[in-house]
Amino acid sequence: MSAEPSAAAVNDRPLAIIAGAGDFPPHLASLAVTSGRPVFIAALEGAADPSAFGSAELRSYRLGQLGRLLEELRRREIVDLVLIGGLPRPSFAALRPEASTLKYLPHFARAFRGGDDHLLRGVVSFFEGQGFAVHGPADIAPQMTAQPGPLGRRQASPEQRALVARGFELLAALSPFDVGQAAILADHRVIAIEAAEGTDAMIRRVGDMIASGRLRIAKGDGVLVKAPKDGQDLRVDMPAIGSETLRHVAAAGLAGIGLRAGRVLVGNAAGLAKLADQSGLFVEGVA
Amino acid sequence: MSAEPSAAAVNDRPLAIIAGAGDFPPHLASLAVTSGRPVFIAALEGAADPSAFGSAELRSYRLGQLGRLLEELRRREIVDLVLIGGLPRPSFAALRPEASTLKYLPHFARAFRGGDDHLLRGVVSFFEGQGFAVHGPADIAPQMTAQPGPLGRRQASPEQRALVARGFELLAALSPFDVGQAAILADHRVIAIEAAEGTDAMIRRVGDMIASGRLRIAKGDGVLVKAPKDGQDLRVDMPAIGSETLRHVAAAGLAGIGLRAGRVLVGNAAGLAKLADQSGLFVEGVA
Repeated sequence: MSAEPSAAAVNDRPLAIIAGAGDFPPHLASLAVTSGRPVFIAALEGAADPSAFGSAELRSYRLGQLGRLLEELRRREIVDLVLIGGLPRPSFAALRPEASTLKYLPHFARAFRGGDDHLLRGVVSFFEGQGFAVHGPADIAPQMTAQPGPLGRRQASPEQRALVARGFELLAALSPFDVGQAAILADHRVIAIEAAEGTDAMIRRVGDMIASGRLRIAKGDGVLVKAPKDGQDLRVDMPAIGSETLRHVAAAGLAGIGLRAGRVLVGNAAGLAKLADQSGLFVEGVA
Repeated sequence: MSAEPSAAAVNDRPLAIIAGAGDFPPHLASLAVTSGRPVFIAALEGAADPSAFGSAELRSYRLGQLGRLLEELRRREIVDLVLIGGLPRPSFAALRPEASTLKYLPHFARAFRGGDDHLLRGVVSFFEGQGFAVHGPADIAPQMTAQPGPLGRRQASPEQRALVARGFELLAALSPFDVGQAAILADHRVIAIEAAEGTDAMIRRVGDMIASGRLRIAKGDGVLVKAPKDGQDLRVDMPAIGSETLRHVAAAGLAGIGLRAGRVLVGNAAGLAKLADQSGLFVEGVA
């Protein structure tokens, strides 16, 4: 996973984007269309907003319509695909399999038994087993990941960079335990470590501790660090930050964000850079 | 720090207990008095409840009356002391130094600059520099720490023990970063890691995730692990659990607690064992 354009990004074969919730799928679609590549959007019902994809060709699918989706991909002679965006909360109605999907169920029944990571690996192996090539968003549009250096105008101070480096060491030490995509450090120590609660909940927790006076940190202190775990499949499970992350970091009173360059999605980098400048935050990619 | 009685526990020299908040100070006082040792209680105003100490000799002190406390300890020819219990939230009134305390301020001003751990080390080094011997509660009353094996009737299952062992490995990996006195594991993964928020807040967070359906764990799954960090001064900063911890663990829907034997305070073990049995929790010390 590097910031160099991969083969998938430069060739002109048609690309399917299996699109879930959020801003990342339409942003990726727009970059792929601009690159001149034929793009087909498979919008997941209850997650993707079909109106966000402009002029790209688009059809909507329930999760239970996997068989119909595969038929459409084959009819279009599409081999390359990307899965991006949040999944819909599966409802029985959305999952109800059509006849053409029934035969694939045993594969997913096995994958479901092993937890989230196992499920994602199961989804990738399913599409690969069906003859598709699964790419990561960073393969198609490397500019959607954090680049080395500051994203906006503000740069981290040497002290802030040292805190970020310490944070990356912490996340690396946690990686063998399959936990710790993010942490917050301040005042020369570790303030919060993300586990099942997610990054935004962790940031809010620190904000609450600061607001209630339980935690006192100096102005300019306090950094969020975010990086993938070792062995995380960056094709379908790349860590990401967005405008909500920046808003939470600013609201908590932290000074900025350190990201592993090329390994964390930032989506619309220009938009985030503007928000970082407005909020007085540094956001830096670290190689 | 072992479960064997140390020299401090068997000799009959007078012992001063500098007592903060909570049940541990009166419990330790009662065990020390029962052992036949002369005991003097220095109750910190705003923290210790003087009425909880029964017949032991007791005087109350503000933090700013350190000089007066030292004079009293010397008058009584006391060398051995234990600091135990929560500290009062320092108010300016409590800190206002008496004339006899002013000369000690530079020592504490230096210690205050380095954060909590540094402050505790500063307190220990202060008393040692004044000629006192600072003991841990476990030196005086090893029965106040978790003993190896189950505390109550319920024992951990092999699966639960494996999860506890994994948790201790995680805490050991975090130790070089001076963080992680506790963690919660369930469903073969790490659910929460304690940093600045404290153990009880971490347990409540997991309880909230379970109650809201964001996190689903099977009955009998879910363990809290607690252990000191490497290099933690167990004389003044031993991790502890109490009845509140057990109530939070039960309320969150977890199955039990794994503790590093001899290195985590349980206070009144018989009372906790009863509560563990009533709550259907296992609480095990692990050597």
